[in-house]
Amino acid sequence: MLTRIDHIGIACFDLDETVEFYRATYGFEVLHTEANEEQGLREAMLRINGASDGGASYVQLLESTRDDSVIGKWLAKNGEGVHHIAFGTEDVDGDAEAVRGKGVRVLYDEPRRGSMGSRITFLHPKDCHGVLTELVTAAPQATPGH
Amino acid sequence: MLTRIDHIGIACFDLDETVEFYRATYGFEVLHTEANEEQGLREAMLRINGASDGGASYVQLLESTRDDSVIGKWLAKNGEGVHHIAFGTEDVDGDAEAVRGKGVRVLYDEPRRGSMGSRITFLHPKDCHGVLTELVTAAPQATPGH
Repeated sequence: MLTRIDHIGIACFDLDETVEFYRATYGFEVLHTEANEEQGLREAMLRINGASDGGASYVQLLESTRDDSVIGKWLAKNGEGVHHIAFGTEDVDGDAEAVRGKGVRVLYDEPRRGSMGSRITFLHPKDCHGVLTELVTAAPQATPGH
Repeated sequence: MLTRIDHIGIACFDLDETVEFYRATYGFEVLHTEANEEQGLREAMLRINGASDGGASYVQLLESTRDDSVIGKWLAKNGEGVHHIAFGTEDVDGDAEAVRGKGVRVLYDEPRRGSMGSRITFLHPKDCHGVLTELVTAAPQATPGH
């Protein structure tokens, strides 16, 4: 069951500059950064608030580190903006299967590793009224206290 | 101070069909619907979770009721997808002024009425790394118990 808005994923041309925009404009601070060489991206997670399911809601800023990455191609086509939205669940495996059973295309055969040790999958935007939608289960240690 | 992700605003061609997609696929229920004749839109608010500031996080589905509305023109150009994101604050007036003072264009001179009796304003997407960003103060009665 999806129990929170986990994050809004925003693609940007320059991660450091965009992080600074969110800090200077709104006071949002970076909780975590990481790079994913395989996917050709760098990202920063800004924690905005705690959620009633014990998790939290984040803004995720995404920068491409090579032109042929998924984010790089998306930025070349669309410019900066909201790339995807993510809903949090305790059971990404079960929810992905349930959604697949309803005829929505799930992009990974099995959930993969996401930010901060989470497990994630994506749903095809054409099956979700134009919205690239991620399902995410936070790593156990990422939930308490947040 | 912005203290939560208040909602993700998603433009769709057919509100009833999109509401049904979110219900059937994820189990999200409609908390509230309203029409805004002046803005030429109908909308549904799906409450996803409570937030640690006492407010809540929603998916807002937006349908145009005439071709020349803001949402209608946006849909004609972009198709369905994420139209804007909104951060919640107790003081939209003060935060809008603070943001304006940092050189970000605020689209309304004064906050206006938004969904469920809220007060809202928007920040220019070109000043926000491509993201149309709303600031929202919930109506007093909309916050407790959610």
